[in-house]
Amino acid sequence: MASFVTGLESALDGTRLPHDRLQTVHEGRPLWVRYDLDAIRAAVAPADVARRAPTLWRYAELLPVEDVAAAPTLGETTTPLLPCPRLGEQLGLARLWIKDESRLPTGSFKARGLVMAVARARELGARRLAIPTAGNAGGALAAYAARAGLEAWVLMPADTPVVNRVEAAALGARVFLVDGLISDCGRLVREGAGAMGWFDVSTLKEPYRIEGKKTMGLELAEQLGWELPDVILYPTGGGTGLIGMWKAFAELRELGWLRGEGLPRMVACQSEGCAPVVDAFEAGARFSEPPADPHTVASGLRVPTPLGDFMILDAVRASGGRACAAREDRLTAWTRRACAAEGISVCPETAACLDVLERLVEEGAVGRDERVVVFNTGAMQKYVEAVDVELPRLPRAGAVDWEALRAAYGAP
Amino acid sequence: MASFVTGLESALDGTRLPHDRLQTVHEGRPLWVRYDLDAIRAAVAPADVARRAPTLWRYAELLPVEDVAAAPTLGETTTPLLPCPRLGEQLGLARLWIKDESRLPTGSFKARGLVMAVARARELGARRLAIPTAGNAGGALAAYAARAGLEAWVLMPADTPVVNRVEAAALGARVFLVDGLISDCGRLVREGAGAMGWFDVSTLKEPYRIEGKKTMGLELAEQLGWELPDVILYPTGGGTGLIGMWKAFAELRELGWLRGEGLPRMVACQSEGCAPVVDAFEAGARFSEPPADPHTVASGLRVPTPLGDFMILDAVRASGGRACAAREDRLTAWTRRACAAEGISVCPETAACLDVLERLVEEGAVGRDERVVVFNTGAMQKYVEAVDVELPRLPRAGAVDWEALRAAYGAP
Repeated sequence: MASFVTGLESALDGTRLPHDRLQTVHEGRPLWVRYDLDAIRAAVAPADVARRAPTLWRYAELLPVEDVAAAPTLGETTTPLLPCPRLGEQLGLARLWIKDESRLPTGSFKARGLVMAVARARELGARRLAIPTAGNAGGALAAYAARAGLEAWVLMPADTPVVNRVEAAALGARVFLVDGLISDCGRLVREGAGAMGWFDVSTLKEPYRIEGKKTMGLELAEQLGWELPDVILYPTGGGTGLIGMWKAFAELRELGWLRGEGLPRMVACQSEGCAPVVDAFEAGARFSEPPADPHTVASGLRVPTPLGDFMILDAVRASGGRACAAREDRLTAWTRRACAAEGISVCPETAACLDVLERLVEEGAVGRDERVVVFNTGAMQKYVEAVDVELPRLPRAGAVDWEALRAAYGAP
Repeated sequence: MASFVTGLESALDGTRLPHDRLQTVHEGRPLWVRYDLDAIRAAVAPADVARRAPTLWRYAELLPVEDVAAAPTLGETTTPLLPCPRLGEQLGLARLWIKDESRLPTGSFKARGLVMAVARARELGARRLAIPTAGNAGGALAAYAARAGLEAWVLMPADTPVVNRVEAAALGARVFLVDGLISDCGRLVREGAGAMGWFDVSTLKEPYRIEGKKTMGLELAEQLGWELPDVILYPTGGGTGLIGMWKAFAELRELGWLRGEGLPRMVACQSEGCAPVVDAFEAGARFSEPPADPHTVASGLRVPTPLGDFMILDAVRASGGRACAAREDRLTAWTRRACAAEGISVCPETAACLDVLERLVEEGAVGRDERVVVFNTGAMQKYVEAVDVELPRLPRAGAVDWEALRAAYGAP
């Protein structure tokens, strides 16, 4: 079996590299995976895709895995694209959707990238995979490595949310806590790679995670009848998803699968507590500088030095979009507000998108009738530290003053 | 629009009740929902179902909701049926699957029952829904009530896992902690129903949750080509899912949709820390007695007085199955073992099934080549208290003794 991949290409200078062996970066910067799109166009059409099982593997021709049947799958089902009328009304939008990535294995969008990275790593002979992670990527790597029969080594900051720590360990990874940020964990993975025999599957150091994240764009396009929305808001830590979606749209356009001419405006959303991409966007720069004191309850946004900064910024600018920072002190409130408005388990990273969206609507940068899609990248349930509250107590039966309770909360 | 429901029927004495108004129980015991199966047979066939979207709504004719298009959906996608070769090998089974219910909204099987209960409650005019819960049901009710624009009131034991507490509150429910068990919470809901205007959606006090859980059986049958497995192991707290699946199989047989004659042996799995159904099964009784000191880390199994005990026991006995208790002190180890073996986020309740399954295989009660399905009813990530461990630390880059680490963990 073979994929339609023709090779890898440096995202910075276009240098070509072969894809028949393990690759990481070229001169420190990420690689694009390139396909024979003419051959894909001849091999498959949207009508064929429509008849396949509802998982990300329905786009097999646009994926880098050689033997899809042997890939370590946990059932990567198409995530729901949920209309959000109540939240839309609160924001002044008539057509708002949330694409709920929390419904993937281990409850986050990280599954998409890591199933692809693990599948390719196994095809190319790696056995011991290592990752620095600020949260959900560790659990996703652990799950797919377990499913593939490979070793996972997970290095995370000591203050990573408890659910992320527990899931990676329970899923059989060797987990280590590090006093520092994800960038400190990344340094350790680089330093120890030789001694430990680690293959580094860090965001964008491994070329196939982008291809997995690309399926967010492929699914979204298909779910909207191959007609893209006007605006996409995406919580941007490492930014692989935004980069991947923009690549998906380019490939779909070249394949001729898209209806309509327009591409969405891509809005990269960060928290003011850690906003290197926003700073670079506003400064007109192509590369970012790490912020002085990176902090945010949205653990997935705590990425001070995104390796693909220029790829994010290139996509945002080419799309006519923006990079915007949410107010850190509003993330918890937005999380709860969005969860309660629609019943979707919206995570703090996505809350950043909603705070940004409110401002863009107020400023007129997003129009009331535009089709707006927000990505919910993970399950709120994984962020107990960020959303926990004190809950009231009730005594046992026989001891409750029901009339007082009724008076406090109102009649139905 | 109308459903194919003909009415409700007491599960204990067959009394018929109308379904055009809110109903709870009849003389304290649950109700069955009855359908015009002849009309359903004439209206739809498996080939029609196969062409529909991959959610539980594809079985609309077998569901009680009148207006499916208006139901408060969060995307109840078909859950993966995952082959488990590694875990099977450890247990001595050649054909073992886990059906991974953790992939439903809010990360548990409770979504199936509660989407149906909330949809019907809204159709019949209820506005304020209340539930006693030992864990996942509270989050699921909160989510669907929010999606439907109804009020959710959630009463849970004070020692309910933190993720369950947080998710219900974040999803907009009014959450109260009670010093006691789920049965104490249930007493409070009954006592306060009049004063507070609560409609009680407790397990089996509300007739439509069984119908939602029934879809586990419908999906499983369709995923296996309408041929049922030999054995099903099901973690049994309230038991709605086991009751619902057995009802599903009966309806499918009457519709003539099943291939083959046999029905699965249903194995109801509890923990020895709280095993009222097992005790009744072994005593040859149809009704259970509450255990003296109910305790288990599998919070969903901490149900001392299951209202549908006789329905569970009837199904188990009719199927030629068993009710078995797992060793409480093995649940955490089995959770981690199953997670690490297959990469599936297996919860402690499901761990009880695996401890039971190991014993049944050893005893020869389950054969090596039998087709065995275990239900994973929720995401391990929601049980941080049960699976948490101390994790080792690494110093920052430059200070790690890599050779010592390599020696400790071995070469790749």
